[in-house]
Amino acid sequence: MNVQEGKRYEQLADDMAQAIRDGLLQVGERLPSVRVTCRRRGISPSTVFQAYGLLETQGLIEARPRSGYYVRARKRPARALLQAAPPQIEATSVAVSALAFELLESTRNSGIVPLGSAFPAAHLFPFQTLARCGARAMRRVTPEQTTNALTAGDPGLRQALRRRYALQGVPLSSDELVVTNGAMEALNLCLQAVTKPGDLVVVESPTFYASLQALERLNLRAVEVATDPRDGVDLSALAELLKRQTVAACWFMPTLQNPLGALMSAARKQALVALLAQHDVPLIEDDVYGELYADARRPPPAKAFDQAGGVLHCASFSKCLAPGYRVGWAAAGRYAHVVHRLKMMSSLATALPPQLAIADYLAQGGFERHLRQLRLELATEQQRARRLIERHFPAGTRVTRPSGGYFVWLELPPSVDALALHHQAMAQGISTAPGVLFSADRRFRHHMRLNVGHPGDERIDRALRVLGDLAHQML
Amino acid sequence: MNVQEGKRYEQLADDMAQAIRDGLLQVGERLPSVRVTCRRRGISPSTVFQAYGLLETQGLIEARPRSGYYVRARKRPARALLQAAPPQIEATSVAVSALAFELLESTRNSGIVPLGSAFPAAHLFPFQTLARCGARAMRRVTPEQTTNALTAGDPGLRQALRRRYALQGVPLSSDELVVTNGAMEALNLCLQAVTKPGDLVVVESPTFYASLQALERLNLRAVEVATDPRDGVDLSALAELLKRQTVAACWFMPTLQNPLGALMSAARKQALVALLAQHDVPLIEDDVYGELYADARRPPPAKAFDQAGGVLHCASFSKCLAPGYRVGWAAAGRYAHVVHRLKMMSSLATALPPQLAIADYLAQGGFERHLRQLRLELATEQQRARRLIERHFPAGTRVTRPSGGYFVWLELPPSVDALALHHQAMAQGISTAPGVLFSADRRFRHHMRLNVGHPGDERIDRALRVLGDLAHQML
Repeated sequence: MNVQEGKRYEQLADDMAQAIRDGLLQVGERLPSVRVTCRRRGISPSTVFQAYGLLETQGLIEARPRSGYYVRARKRPARALLQAAPPQIEATSVAVSALAFELLESTRNSGIVPLGSAFPAAHLFPFQTLARCGARAMRRVTPEQTTNALTAGDPGLRQALRRRYALQGVPLSSDELVVTNGAMEALNLCLQAVTKPGDLVVVESPTFYASLQALERLNLRAVEVATDPRDGVDLSALAELLKRQTVAACWFMPTLQNPLGALMSAARKQALVALLAQHDVPLIEDDVYGELYADARRPPPAKAFDQAGGVLHCASFSKCLAPGYRVGWAAAGRYAHVVHRLKMMSSLATALPPQLAIADYLAQGGFERHLRQLRLELATEQQRARRLIERHFPAGTRVTRPSGGYFVWLELPPSVDALALHHQAMAQGISTAPGVLFSADRRFRHHMRLNVGHPGDERIDRALRVLGDLAHQML
Repeated sequence: MNVQEGKRYEQLADDMAQAIRDGLLQVGERLPSVRVTCRRRGISPSTVFQAYGLLETQGLIEARPRSGYYVRARKRPARALLQAAPPQIEATSVAVSALAFELLESTRNSGIVPLGSAFPAAHLFPFQTLARCGARAMRRVTPEQTTNALTAGDPGLRQALRRRYALQGVPLSSDELVVTNGAMEALNLCLQAVTKPGDLVVVESPTFYASLQALERLNLRAVEVATDPRDGVDLSALAELLKRQTVAACWFMPTLQNPLGALMSAARKQALVALLAQHDVPLIEDDVYGELYADARRPPPAKAFDQAGGVLHCASFSKCLAPGYRVGWAAAGRYAHVVHRLKMMSSLATALPPQLAIADYLAQGGFERHLRQLRLELATEQQRARRLIERHFPAGTRVTRPSGGYFVWLELPPSVDALALHHQAMAQGISTAPGVLFSADRRFRHHMRLNVGHPGDERIDRALRVLGDLAHQML
């Protein structure tokens, strides 16, 4: 698929989605046939199939065998999934179990089927191209570059990042960006920039366990706010919480939240930023999955709606281009200066070779093509894995249908203990990410996050069947 | 100079130094002539000159024009340099000035003569060879390596590091090493591993300003202990301090201390480790200059004398091989597990490309040759710069003669304010590192650290003359 075709299928999917939203295509109505659409648009059948596949992934349409594609009822099957998680009156001191570390360690063991892993399959990434880019860039390196990269990062890479932000409608000042050792360091620095020990930080429920670890490391207290698997943070619950408690910061993932895959709409992101600005509470926006959307366009980050410089936007190339290169960054708004200083104090600067490799790669212009391919592979694999889960897991199991990324979140029947299931599965060489990992107070006992970002790994199908069988035995 | 020759000159210098220590060559006695030594040893004149140059750098011998080399009186000109710095009863809360950041920023400006910089000249390092090594390693990279490097570091690099430790008589267990984003991250992680906010940490006086920044970032309190420019930490003062106060850790640089260049003898390192073990106080050993010794053999780290696993040894390749690659490590003894977890929590893992480049470089076998060349260049430049300082600075100025590294520490006459001098020099495009940077309570007002690690920079001579002139004007 060339660039032109890539844009065409996104455009077509976008148009159809708009038509559905506008009511031009009603629930149950048949979409124009592939043949007709090809003729009307002057595009190839494969482009139409890709567009319809994308709409199917988004849950907007469904294929009926030997009949065609139909607009789907918006069932929102996962909406009721989450247990109501009212904000807690008592904030919990954070103490994340050794489980998170065990899980991380298990990803190093290639003999374990990585359904619990936080990383997609490494073969999805252009390591050979990156190696060539890195070799070229390092051949040209000047002694000055080793000091110029001190301390905010390579100027060329920062310029390329600023360009990408600008194209998303987020203009940054030239000194707002600090390149970090992955997004993890960026998030940690931002968290430290806006808190002091003992402070209260709002996280999602469920939340990414690394945020709980970061809070633990900085002696902060977590308060969890209910988060919808589709729409993200419950804004009225958050508003209530902000009225009652003094909060130092929020750490949220408004785009493709880990583990839920929730995607806040642009309007809700805007409302979130306004609410926090009103209370003068900074938002640490973890946007590491932002490039892995299955929609036609990149969802805007919350940062796009920031007027007051209160959004600290953190992201990286680790999930979308170059795992292991550890190149992330923070665009930390009015805290950029503090973050920069903390960076110097904690690790001085980010390694030059991976920065130059990525800057060279970006300059070659293949990034968008790679991303489109990656999104398509992930979306296809998500559909495939979800079908297998629906087939193998007990009745009553509910599974999210995220608009991107490579996680699904399962709610198992109440009699199934996901942690026990995890241990039994590990004994059979299969990892999972049990729900208790994703909350400071050990909620989500019947939940698990599964990594569906390993297309082509032939062990996945058997592993999902084994997990389903184990769950059946626990009923 | 080939490898063989390199070893020969070190061996000769070593033998001569031993002869002097043993009294076989007395103070004032003439050394065997170059001609005679060549014949006796079967070596070339240049090897003898290199050996005698090394001994001169170490202050053991001196050249007398048209006469030869003579054993020098052990004047220890810098011993009296340091103001007595009795341990303070009141520990100081750390608050390092913006000066340290300004200094770091100034190193990015190639228009400023970098006498205040913390980095040696970049042209001293084999960037082209490293680039070739990196290109080769990354061409061969497998997807598995990106996850195998999670989280303690690339197994090949860690194996090579363990081999180097073993050759220095420091056996490490296989899981003691954690690769970090430079030594700075290693030091920060180790500090956090052994302290909690509010704790007291002993540092040298004067001390490396980044240690004060690290303490500040973790809300720790510093207590300073007197440090001799030649022999390092005052052990009896430290013993007194440990009796009186509850100390969480010591952060010392026993080898080529920054800024003094002090080198604790092996016996004193052993005594230090024993003293701290007795009080169960961990030692964070900052050993980033360990490879830059001007002696014939690498001084052993304090870690070599550690029986109880209480020494957390931190080092990197940033000062001796690959600035900008940000590859450091911690060998954290019985705290290794905690350090590893903190690493995962704060930046997950260290970038793979620089690790693989360095592992490949080490496997090629050129590291020792590079180090010998580097040591020689730094030692030669130190001598040259010290002569210029003695010529241009006011009478009463005293300057250290460190056994390696690339810093000298000056004590100026009492009427010269080093901070004022710094500002005046910056106005003329010359940076210095004023003494107040190196203490939490702003001592060392008449002191400065100068970077003499820029051989071949033709601006240095003029800059040293300008500094001397400015100092004269302040008398």
